[in-house]
Amino acid sequence: MTRRKKIYEGKAKILYEGPEPGTLIQYFKDDTTAFDATKKAVLEGKGVINNRISEYIMTRLGSIGVQTHFIKRLNLREQLIREVEIIPLEVVCRNVAAGSLSTRFGMPEGQALPRSIIEFYLKDDKLHDPMVAEEHITAFNWASTQEIDDMMALTLRVNDFLTGMFGAVGITLVDFKIEFGRIWENDFARIILADEISPDSCRLWDAQTNEKLDKDRFRRDLGNVIESYTEVARRLGIMKEMPTVIQGGLH
Amino acid sequence: MTRRKKIYEGKAKILYEGPEPGTLIQYFKDDTTAFDATKKAVLEGKGVINNRISEYIMTRLGSIGVQTHFIKRLNLREQLIREVEIIPLEVVCRNVAAGSLSTRFGMPEGQALPRSIIEFYLKDDKLHDPMVAEEHITAFNWASTQEIDDMMALTLRVNDFLTGMFGAVGITLVDFKIEFGRIWENDFARIILADEISPDSCRLWDAQTNEKLDKDRFRRDLGNVIESYTEVARRLGIMKEMPTVIQGGLH
Ligand SMILES: Nc1ncnc2c1ncn2[C@@H]1O[C@H](COP(=O)(O)OP(=O)(O)O)[C@@H](O)[C@H]1O
Ligand SMILES: Nc1ncnc2c1ncn2[C@@H]1O[C@H](COP(=O)(O)OP(=O)(O)O)[C@@H](O)[C@H]1O
Ligand SMILES: [Mg+2]
Ligand SMILES: [Mg+2]
Repeated sequence: MTRRKKIYEGKAKILYEGPEPGTLIQYFKDDTTAFDATKKAVLEGKGVINNRISEYIMTRLGSIGVQTHFIKRLNLREQLIREVEIIPLEVVCRNVAAGSLSTRFGMPEGQALPRSIIEFYLKDDKLHDPMVAEEHITAFNWASTQEIDDMMALTLRVNDFLTGMFGAVGITLVDFKIEFGRIWENDFARIILADEISPDSCRLWDAQTNEKLDKDRFRRDLGNVIESYTEVARRLGIMKEMPTVIQGGLH
Repeated sequence: MTRRKKIYEGKAKILYEGPEPGTLIQYFKDDTTAFDATKKAVLEGKGVINNRISEYIMTRLGSIGVQTHFIKRLNLREQLIREVEIIPLEVVCRNVAAGSLSTRFGMPEGQALPRSIIEFYLKDDKLHDPMVAEEHITAFNWASTQEIDDMMALTLRVNDFLTGMFGAVGITLVDFKIEFGRIWENDFARIILADEISPDSCRLWDAQTNEKLDKDRFRRDLGNVIESYTEVARRLGIMKEMPTVIQGGLH
């Protein structure tokens, strides 16, 4: 591998300068963190699985007309992406009460929500990613009203698609987090889907047993984290393309 | 005083059955609480001053066409109000960073906001009044989209009026909290302003010195709480109607 300029190292991924201007290479690490990175682990093979799952989902979303940053997968841990100006918001979409929504509103985990709910959190680890309302987003110029509308419409499309896709393989999409970025064309910015979609960023429950197949296994010390991520990939029918070492089981 | 049915006793006020159907008597206590009532005190005379300040402000708001629950003041601690179906939201309007906004977003207290920001908090002491977004409000049916719009429009009018009124007497309106309720007319509900507007529910800073003249004096143990509330009433020109015992100073 040639020496490349590292642009940013995050908690789960590294961004390198890409081969063309306006591109980046997104490298998926095995590092796993939770609770503002106060809890950490290295889960062998996680980066490989998430790289593949995210490739698969971004590609499928692209085919229904949801524009994403994904260009192509380069190798086991890397994908080529379009560089975007990241909007500093985590967009969360929830179908079933879980996690912080359950805590904040005293609703038992697993309770179906009356309808899908979209939430915005400020991407700021130091401030512990506080929830924000549209009022804050527009007042502090984190995104425009038009961009909020675009993000919400895209998030609902992603939710519809993912709910269908996971539902078809016996998985309930409880909630997920996505990020968006701006692509500039002259003075006009378009919003596209960026970052990743993987068991790190979704709550995925087995539809029959409600068994968790996502990062909550790590957050809550439930064990079998990689096995669960692998099960998600297996059900999506993309395990056969994995290297033998991962197909054979990583632990 | 005749025996009346107590409808509700809150942290700062008591509601009694009113003389006519659809009315209530709102009694202002001297009890003062902060931080989910973990901090408590009785501040002699506070109820009298807040009853008078809230009467004054609600009356003035009524005269610019903002409909309120206020009917008339009955005595030192009581006012007759229209009974409403309270919307379980605290509507906060902020002009200057302070309190929880400063904490959540790491903005120094006193920093002017780029524009006035309206926030909604769920009125639920057990859940510590969590901040909510419009998405939560409509999904959980706490208020309709139309009601949110109405509350926001009314809140901006209240903010404009109060900013002008306090500004004229050398007080900066940093932020305030209001509550709204529904009045039913057949199947149609209208939103009116309810509860109170007083130094308990506003942040009021002396425009010259930034000295706090509001409940933060109690929250932060700054002393002279009643003296500051009295100063607000004095500047509004309504101290002369106060009983001599309060005019003479309560402490
Ligand atoms: N297409 C893109 N262009 C630029 N930045 C991106 C793109 N996609 C994702 N990012 C950013 O790259 C980082 C991905 O690494 P990650 O480990 O998730 O970081 P973090 O710890 O900040 O969440 C994130 O900060 C994310 O916002
Ligand atoms: N016009 C009204 N009709 C019915 N309820 C009201 C009206 N105005 C205010 N309230 C409610 O009365 C209570 C006032 O008492 P307070 O001590 O402030 O209670 P709390 O501790 O619940 O804030 C509040 O719960 C408020 O929502
Ligand atoms: Mg990330
Ligand atoms: Mg109250």
